[in-house]
Amino acid sequence: MKTISENRCFGGVQGVYSHASHACGCDMTFGLYLPPQAAQGPVPLLWYLSGLTCTHENAMTKAAAQGHAARAGIAVVFPDTSPRGPGVANDEAYDLGQGAGFYVNATQAPWAPHFRMWDYIAEELPALLGDRFALDMGRQAITGHSMGGHGALTLAMAHPGRFRSVSAFAPIANPSRSDWGRGQLTAYLGADEDSWQRHDASVAMARDGFDGPVLIDQGADDQFLALLKPETLAQAMATRRQEGTFRMQKGYDHSYFFVSTFMGDHVDFHAGALLA
Amino acid sequence: MKTISENRCFGGVQGVYSHASHACGCDMTFGLYLPPQAAQGPVPLLWYLSGLTCTHENAMTKAAAQGHAARAGIAVVFPDTSPRGPGVANDEAYDLGQGAGFYVNATQAPWAPHFRMWDYIAEELPALLGDRFALDMGRQAITGHSMGGHGALTLAMAHPGRFRSVSAFAPIANPSRSDWGRGQLTAYLGADEDSWQRHDASVAMARDGFDGPVLIDQGADDQFLALLKPETLAQAMATRRQEGTFRMQKGYDHSYFFVSTFMGDHVDFHAGALLA
Repeated sequence: MKTISENRCFGGVQGVYSHASHACGCDMTFGLYLPPQAAQGPVPLLWYLSGLTCTHENAMTKAAAQGHAARAGIAVVFPDTSPRGPGVANDEAYDLGQGAGFYVNATQAPWAPHFRMWDYIAEELPALLGDRFALDMGRQAITGHSMGGHGALTLAMAHPGRFRSVSAFAPIANPSRSDWGRGQLTAYLGADEDSWQRHDASVAMARDGFDGPVLIDQGADDQFLALLKPETLAQAMATRRQEGTFRMQKGYDHSYFFVSTFMGDHVDFHAGALLA
Repeated sequence: MKTISENRCFGGVQGVYSHASHACGCDMTFGLYLPPQAAQGPVPLLWYLSGLTCTHENAMTKAAAQGHAARAGIAVVFPDTSPRGPGVANDEAYDLGQGAGFYVNATQAPWAPHFRMWDYIAEELPALLGDRFALDMGRQAITGHSMGGHGALTLAMAHPGRFRSVSAFAPIANPSRSDWGRGQLTAYLGADEDSWQRHDASVAMARDGFDGPVLIDQGADDQFLALLKPETLAQAMATRRQEGTFRMQKGYDHSYFFVSTFMGDHVDFHAGALLA
């Protein structure tokens, strides 16, 4: 593991690190914010999964998470959104290939050799983090934005007992019925839609639900509402009687101005579950 | 004036606007955050002047100012750092020309026709803002980072009664004795150092001081300490018995991780003066 940078931030350290990833078969970069409390011993960990076109850096610099995390005494990890590099398959579209891993293990050519973000987030990166940093891996929570909200919800529901709470900002909520999903899931997983099911938050919510609290924030003026399909997730949550809160935020769009506005609420929500 | 974008943020609006600038002889772009309270009537205005290489956008997306401004009911304007465009003089160096206006009115070729950031910030932009937005221009304060801290301090001291409070994050504190200053002041203003005096915060502090509270934050691990020369400003403030606070922050560097960490303190500081 290589240290790219470390900056003092709200009394803790905002670090950026890279490492050779076995899951993705390339070097991967991630950001990790350690609050001041980490100097005294292991702290809980909140995962933040980013959206289409993002790297590890976007949320780290624009989501205003660190101040809230320092106050709560929680670490935040900011993984990248896909494998990267000259030897990694790509596509001209912004929503397929590098920057658009969709948090799945690809089974189809040309993606299968590197696009294994599901295993990277669920297995490889947690092992590395628990090994190298002052983190209490028995206390994890997960959130994300857009494609990252999709990743957070689907990973949380597929790993019962792993995450104490899950939240999302404007998640891609029903990708198997959306142009933000159908093309990508076909490309990565093939045309058999059965293989898509655990990668659709609304389907997983209807089928499995989440054993803990859920918080969803969605901007009412989001320019991508027709692609995100929040109504499907809201219905699935209510039908299942899922413990949780779904908030439609008047006037907000899809940007980091929306994410940063409600980041404090999300950190507080996860802190309630992690520090209970 | 043209609206580039408007995003809901912490209940208010983060806007970006452009206009034909008479002072700079080109189109200029600025960001303006209006807190929710602006919907009820004019609110006080905090200026945030940015540093070398920045545009209007850096602090708007990375300084985490909006949440604090919304809580306090204060607007924040984020001007650009220089004139820009194909017809505007430039230099290959990152610290001269476009992105490096140093908040002066240039008198020398090739800079004089456009590089009039002093007049732009002190005269033209406030007139435009007061005319077009719900701002109480009788209640203004000013801050900035690095080159923008230099601008904030020098503009505040040169306009007694204009700003109720002034603060700075890691300001270029003594440019007439620094490589972040001597070359630029020579290029923009000429070799006669008398013309530089009002553009050196330490000189202006020793000579004029500021009729109100001053807050300076400086990172002790700032990689540019030798160029910033905070000790000269600290001495000038103490010698003058200037009302104010100078804080050396252990472990912090020059980045926006430093700025965002202390932004809440600065907004609270200015709110104390603006809302008194």
